[in-house]
Amino acid sequence: MKYFIGLFACLFFEMNLMAQEKVLTVEDLIPGGKTYTNFTPKTTYKVQWYGDDLVFSDENEIWIANPQKPDEKKTLLTQSELITLLNEKDINLNRLSFVSIENQPFATVFLPAKEKQFYLDLRNKTVAFEIPRKKDWANTDFCSENKRFVFTRENNLYISGTEGNTVAIAEDSNPYMVYGQAVHRNEFGIRKGTFWSPKGNFLAFYRMDETMVGDYPLVDIFKREAELKNIKYPMAGMTSHEVIVGIYELSTGKTTYLKTGEPKDHYLTNISWDPNEKYIYIAELNREQNHLQLNQYDITTGEKTRTLFEEHNDRYVEPENPLLFLKKTPDQFIWQSKRSGYNHLYLYDTTGKLIRPLTSGNYDITAALGLDEDEKQIFVVSNELNPIEFQVYKVNLKTAQKTQLTFEPGVHNAQLSLSGKYLLERFSHLNTPLNINLISAAVSTKYKPVRLQTAENPYKDYVFPKISLGSLKAADGKTDLYYHLIKPADFDPDKKYPVVIYVYGGPHSQMIKNDWLASARGWSLYMAQKGYIVFSMDNRGTSNRGFEFESVIHRQLGITETADQMCGVKFLQSLPYVDKERIGVHGWSYGGFMSTNLMLRHPEIFKVGVAGGPVIDWKYYEIMYGERYMDAPQENPDGYEQTNMNNLAGNLKGRFLIIHGDQDPTVVWQNSLSFLKACITARTYPDYFVYPGHGHNMTGTDRVHLHEKITRYFEDYLKYR
Amino acid sequence: MKYFIGLFACLFFEMNLMAQEKVLTVEDLIPGGKTYTNFTPKTTYKVQWYGDDLVFSDENEIWIANPQKPDEKKTLLTQSELITLLNEKDINLNRLSFVSIENQPFATVFLPAKEKQFYLDLRNKTVAFEIPRKKDWANTDFCSENKRFVFTRENNLYISGTEGNTVAIAEDSNPYMVYGQAVHRNEFGIRKGTFWSPKGNFLAFYRMDETMVGDYPLVDIFKREAELKNIKYPMAGMTSHEVIVGIYELSTGKTTYLKTGEPKDHYLTNISWDPNEKYIYIAELNREQNHLQLNQYDITTGEKTRTLFEEHNDRYVEPENPLLFLKKTPDQFIWQSKRSGYNHLYLYDTTGKLIRPLTSGNYDITAALGLDEDEKQIFVVSNELNPIEFQVYKVNLKTAQKTQLTFEPGVHNAQLSLSGKYLLERFSHLNTPLNINLISAAVSTKYKPVRLQTAENPYKDYVFPKISLGSLKAADGKTDLYYHLIKPADFDPDKKYPVVIYVYGGPHSQMIKNDWLASARGWSLYMAQKGYIVFSMDNRGTSNRGFEFESVIHRQLGITETADQMCGVKFLQSLPYVDKERIGVHGWSYGGFMSTNLMLRHPEIFKVGVAGGPVIDWKYYEIMYGERYMDAPQENPDGYEQTNMNNLAGNLKGRFLIIHGDQDPTVVWQNSLSFLKACITARTYPDYFVYPGHGHNMTGTDRVHLHEKITRYFEDYLKYR
Repeated sequence: MKYFIGLFACLFFEMNLMAQEKVLTVEDLIPGGKTYTNFTPKTTYKVQWYGDDLVFSDENEIWIANPQKPDEKKTLLTQSELITLLNEKDINLNRLSFVSIENQPFATVFLPAKEKQFYLDLRNKTVAFEIPRKKDWANTDFCSENKRFVFTRENNLYISGTEGNTVAIAEDSNPYMVYGQAVHRNEFGIRKGTFWSPKGNFLAFYRMDETMVGDYPLVDIFKREAELKNIKYPMAGMTSHEVIVGIYELSTGKTTYLKTGEPKDHYLTNISWDPNEKYIYIAELNREQNHLQLNQYDITTGEKTRTLFEEHNDRYVEPENPLLFLKKTPDQFIWQSKRSGYNHLYLYDTTGKLIRPLTSGNYDITAALGLDEDEKQIFVVSNELNPIEFQVYKVNLKTAQKTQLTFEPGVHNAQLSLSGKYLLERFSHLNTPLNINLISAAVSTKYKPVRLQTAENPYKDYVFPKISLGSLKAADGKTDLYYHLIKPADFDPDKKYPVVIYVYGGPHSQMIKNDWLASARGWSLYMAQKGYIVFSMDNRGTSNRGFEFESVIHRQLGITETADQMCGVKFLQSLPYVDKERIGVHGWSYGGFMSTNLMLRHPEIFKVGVAGGPVIDWKYYEIMYGERYMDAPQENPDGYEQTNMNNLAGNLKGRFLIIHGDQDPTVVWQNSLSFLKACITARTYPDYFVYPGHGHNMTGTDRVHLHEKITRYFEDYLKYR
Repeated sequence: MKYFIGLFACLFFEMNLMAQEKVLTVEDLIPGGKTYTNFTPKTTYKVQWYGDDLVFSDENEIWIANPQKPDEKKTLLTQSELITLLNEKDINLNRLSFVSIENQPFATVFLPAKEKQFYLDLRNKTVAFEIPRKKDWANTDFCSENKRFVFTRENNLYISGTEGNTVAIAEDSNPYMVYGQAVHRNEFGIRKGTFWSPKGNFLAFYRMDETMVGDYPLVDIFKREAELKNIKYPMAGMTSHEVIVGIYELSTGKTTYLKTGEPKDHYLTNISWDPNEKYIYIAELNREQNHLQLNQYDITTGEKTRTLFEEHNDRYVEPENPLLFLKKTPDQFIWQSKRSGYNHLYLYDTTGKLIRPLTSGNYDITAALGLDEDEKQIFVVSNELNPIEFQVYKVNLKTAQKTQLTFEPGVHNAQLSLSGKYLLERFSHLNTPLNINLISAAVSTKYKPVRLQTAENPYKDYVFPKISLGSLKAADGKTDLYYHLIKPADFDPDKKYPVVIYVYGGPHSQMIKNDWLASARGWSLYMAQKGYIVFSMDNRGTSNRGFEFESVIHRQLGITETADQMCGVKFLQSLPYVDKERIGVHGWSYGGFMSTNLMLRHPEIFKVGVAGGPVIDWKYYEIMYGERYMDAPQENPDGYEQTNMNNLAGNLKGRFLIIHGDQDPTVVWQNSLSFLKACITARTYPDYFVYPGHGHNMTGTDRVHLHEKITRYFEDYLKYR
């Protein structure tokens, strides 16, 4: 067993599990398959934080342990105790999986049928309190300070009282005025639309006016007679929605809208409360996405009180993380920025003064986990040592000194206990399914982490492909690109194998990591089992490699990415066991776009392709993501023309299957349908398939059908050519 | 060369054209192909009636001849004369093809750009008069008596004045109130929505209220952002539209609506004016389509004045022809009915008294051409002698004596001259592209028709398949079914050939006739050229074979038709040169439904199928056609279940390609999309393709792509299996 250590040029590390006799099926390997969940790595117990205590659980019991003595587990709750506890409330429940712990002081149980949420004090085995919670509330956001829910119904926003009564924060007769939901199509790290103030006296919420946005018509064919289902879809270069932020004061029921001004199609991102509840901060980005202001607003007047700082980049600025305020020094916060060319942390004060950079260097901080109890250290994750491996560090806020806390080659992530005293660390590696370790926040040098749980290899009794990791040079001749290569279990170096490249290649992605099975997807394993070599590689434009690596694709999506993937193809062609005449490609979404690029820009290379939910013409994509990378069509006409797959439809030579969900709200159907028309006009002959009722991805058991369909396509046209 | 004469059991007549060296391409054989029109049989001159004179024309000149001396042609109009004639009107036109003759006293020239229509007196080379005619007028209907156009714009109805001014007959703020257009989805022989009274004093018109009809959402993906395009589509068992008939009086501008009563979702068909302009007749059918009343209405009061007679049939009654009034005995008319089990003519008077049946017997009258000058004879077409051959007859109105006027085996049709003195007769036959003959209406026994024109075989220089006609027994063991069989030009009886069945099989169709190439489609010839045997057969349920043959499919569409097609398959399997393991099927629309039936009901037989625009579930089809054959879903739940292809999706074994136009307003997309979902759920694997922007059929050059796509599918999966 070799380990994968440090940087390398082009090494192979093979995962060579003991070949056994059982054969994996599509039902085992594809999400939605009957037996798929049997193969996710499992530990004996689930481990979580409960305050600063460890909690272990299985289906029958929940145990608690002090992190200093993790082996001394004590029963916290049994099935029968849960029954007893809730019987008092006229509830008959014995399923411990309903008890949600989530690192809070209380454990919660939500029973939609009873429309109640219970807060359990597990240590004292009591129901601390209960709160009404209706099952039709969407986007629920609970504030533990004031014990209120906010929630949405249709596009309106409500707040719950303690007796189950609810009060409207915003009710609008205009159905296209959306309150309290995530805006800007969930870009810029936006995942929700409500933000409780630290003490629970105020609620900040988004209001999005979509009235002026174009409707994209979806059609539901499962109705007796097919029915229209419009969605608001703002396309690149077209009119965008308009967002403002409201501040609702609980004591008065009054809402003040912040005066965020014009032009109204700017982006209000990363809403952050000042600990004093007097100010709120918004990272404001212009529609062109090249200029950021971090602005402070007075919540009483709604006036902008200060611009703390600005960031500019000719390509784009992409704020994705809210301010992380210090509790003990509440006029200081940590800000994440790629302004140096890599994602790093900066300590600021609320006047906008940079106190100090906390991290620096030619690598990205990929996560900020939180602060220790004394707020002297911040815990972070980065791939500084190896782009495909992730280690946990702590950084001293005063000295900016960084201490590495994890060492084993592979991918580490961690979760802090409530007060920041301990870390629960999860680790995996090409050959390591999952180890859970305990780390004390106080360690300062190398130490031995406490192993809490280890997952078995779920495939140990099965015939299994050989997976290796490696790197090669990008089309620029200098940048390292990382790949994994999967070979059939009975791989014979003297034979010639057909190759399938599974590609994604778009922003916000990293497919190749030295984690369990090197992140190989079940379908890749399935294809390897069917006798294919499967190859995946992260081209430039993907994540966690700094801003230049990621943004080189600006205004010309697909061009550099395709050139890089072709370096992967050249590498494959150099392998003696690869049949150069049998190279295929498959990808979905951006990977569908990439598959289309590869099929049409290199028709002599690719014999078979399958593109799912592909972007075909970026003018049909939405504004927020689309204009970040491509600018608007009117600003970048040449770029749109050069990257429009419809213009290359006449190049098609190989067999090419395009697949789309008829309800796709992300890459709208117009993309692949327009491509069919372009091919018809150009007299080329793609194949096509539709998954009715599915959106951007096929989910549930239909996902198994999908992958069998894709597999058959390669079996028909690539395997025996 | 053998001829196809009389009835037969199972004979073969091969068309064995001289094999030449040129090879036909998809562009030659498919409509929309670059060279397709080169291969329609052409005579030297076009021949038409101009009153009772013959007119011959080509691109350069128009000639006239007395039918008694057809060889003595005289110039009627030259290109330069046309220029001179219209120069007076400030028009510069030299294209004789713009001159429309249409058997009228005047020839017409419509120039949309000038928004004028000219009426030419060709004999005197003068412009008799001109009428304003705007290019945006739709459904134009000219009345030569009053020289007015009626026309529609959006869904409203207008009448033109002589000075280009127009008057609204009906303008409605409800966009779903449709005036002056064909109703009931063009079933029941309805092709238009305006009916001028004989002397031009009144206009009868349809008003269709579609407000209560469900919208089917079509989506136009060729807009910048895809756009909704709803159509009103009344589905079987759902709420139907409501039609009434208005009578507009020109002298007063007043409209009287006929009191056609309730239930309002009945069918008002075959609107016919009484010659006296006092009454109008409507063949009224209940929504169940099993009970017809021929009703007379007083146009002044709108009251129903008489029910002349009724027809009932437990399956359905299908009136398709308006009353044909006699001019010289204007209280008598001829009515067509299948009440005897075959389509025949009946002479009635306007009190509803049957004067006499004019034709009878176990065969259908397939066309009533009109009456002779003295109104003693009516000219008809029937296939009495042979179901796949059509001869012209005249029938004496007094004696019902029938005289055969054409004799040559094959398909004859004819057009009467203005007064009914002569017939211009067009004839074709398996080996005869087109002969045009002149027949005097007065002939009483066998005679020698005058040959006016003969078309050359357009394929004479090409390698050409061998086409034969034959018959076999239906699944009932007694009914004769007719087929054509096409073999490759280089057919070798010692080889084994793959077979493609091209199927339609639905009502209102007859694919197999002894006309030019036995009605073989270009694609069938193309496939034969590629080395396939191609077979087509008319099963029970198709036309021109009497009511029992046609209506046996009632309440169970596809069941009998499939059983009959399987008799064709057994016949094919009995042929020594047919490879039983390589049988495929293709059809469109009802033929797509039939292809699906054959693939799913006989998965062991059919290796490959291609279904275009297929009905999958009759509940998604429209009311008028659908309920005639299937009744409503609530009346025939078992029938709908048994004929629903979605219920058989799990049977799919062979390769099956479904094709649909995304704008299909006839067989809506819901059909094939729901089938994909049924297959996905059943884990079967059809293939699919979409022609964006196309309706129920692919037209223009895209039709060539379509047939190349279909051909490739058989080449991929059937040819070399």
